[in-house]
Amino acid sequence: MWKLLLAYDGSEFSGWQVQPDQTTVQGELRDALFRITGEAVLPQGSGRTDAGVHALGQVASFALTAPIPEANLVRALNRTLPASIRVLSAMRVADDFHARHSARAKTYEYRIFRGEICPPWEARYVYAYNAPLNLEAMRQAAGHIVGEHDFTSFAANDSDCSDRGCDHAENVRCVLDSYWTLEDDRLIYRIQGNGFLHHMVRNLVGTFLEVGRGNIQVSEIRTILEARARVRAGPTAPARGLFLVRVDYPEN
Amino acid sequence: MWKLLLAYDGSEFSGWQVQPDQTTVQGELRDALFRITGEAVLPQGSGRTDAGVHALGQVASFALTAPIPEANLVRALNRTLPASIRVLSAMRVADDFHARHSARAKTYEYRIFRGEICPPWEARYVYAYNAPLNLEAMRQAAGHIVGEHDFTSFAANDSDCSDRGCDHAENVRCVLDSYWTLEDDRLIYRIQGNGFLHHMVRNLVGTFLEVGRGNIQVSEIRTILEARARVRAGPTAPARGLFLVRVDYPEN
Repeated sequence: MWKLLLAYDGSEFSGWQVQPDQTTVQGELRDALFRITGEAVLPQGSGRTDAGVHALGQVASFALTAPIPEANLVRALNRTLPASIRVLSAMRVADDFHARHSARAKTYEYRIFRGEICPPWEARYVYAYNAPLNLEAMRQAAGHIVGEHDFTSFAANDSDCSDRGCDHAENVRCVLDSYWTLEDDRLIYRIQGNGFLHHMVRNLVGTFLEVGRGNIQVSEIRTILEARARVRAGPTAPARGLFLVRVDYPEN
Repeated sequence: MWKLLLAYDGSEFSGWQVQPDQTTVQGELRDALFRITGEAVLPQGSGRTDAGVHALGQVASFALTAPIPEANLVRALNRTLPASIRVLSAMRVADDFHARHSARAKTYEYRIFRGEICPPWEARYVYAYNAPLNLEAMRQAAGHIVGEHDFTSFAANDSDCSDRGCDHAENVRCVLDSYWTLEDDRLIYRIQGNGFLHHMVRNLVGTFLEVGRGNIQVSEIRTILEARARVRAGPTAPARGLFLVRVDYPEN
């Protein structure tokens, strides 16, 4: 089995997953693999990313019969793929490896540009928002979701809410880390968890922004979680600020 | 007269200059000014930039009758323009100011990515080239063009070669500064001059790259200049690596 580490600019794709008549990351990767090896394989991702969402370290797995050296596959893929998708590494792993099923944790980052004028080359990679925010309240709110919770209130209503199915009893996830940092002109939210529901990070960020604006109180975060109702949380933050940073596996 | 300082991502436009049925920076700015003020003005740039060429500090000038405070015009334009064009500042200047005619010098920068794998978010802003290059030879070659020279050998053949017309006798320009620096994974060429012919910076970079590859000798640079023939110089480097950094005026 092959394990690929990928970075991509999500603004040029209709998300990760193959869809008819859409340019997707999975579809571009499938096509590149076919052009290089002649083998028709559909690479499995660690999870979908939506249109506009970027990846610093997406992981994909697939099997090939062709005996290609690892470095050659990286070079051949990078020559074949559009410049908006880069293969950072390729390695042969155990046959039972599966990018999604084997994943133990994922880390996402959400970038908010706080300066007054967002440089044009940043615009596709940040949410530009420079009105006042109570960062201390946002930090407290972010801390309140650490641990095991039912995140139904932060899941998309579209029923495509999870890699584990959409039964509400199945919407329990464990958040290992959740915090805001301010790095120069960028306010960055980082979250690590054992799994994420559809739109979960963007809905958390949208809710924390409402906390920062004073529209939701820190103390309400617990109530929102307990309500298990999407309508109680804040809006979905724009896709362009979100990056899938890293996927962790038992041995890597 | 108004003087605007602009940054833009050239990859989203068919260059600076208004053209029928094309999205251009000048056209977007004209349309935004009309939506804000109701006044039909065509902003004049310090010079054209080609499709794919970026600007960190393009300057545009135009007259408005509406009495708008400077900060308000910046905010209104940034609300109206696409995120790929940002107005960095706006100031009222003397009536005889003209972004092109008043310019005394311009600075360009050309960025080459030297790492093995170019991050997707850099791809539109660099020329990714990581084969071996003799940087010392490129530095020497860059030094050879400082001073007043006829740059016909480095001008586009398309007769649209200059803001001063295309007579070869008019292809003399004074280069004040011309050097390469290596900054982490980026090899950067910076050039300052009193004016530039069409494609001049990209043709210089393409020629210096040939020097770096060993296909043109440093000693040939003088011969190429003296030949006053485009065919003698190297190829045109890709637009995406080029940035207009700054335009200098007598008093600013």
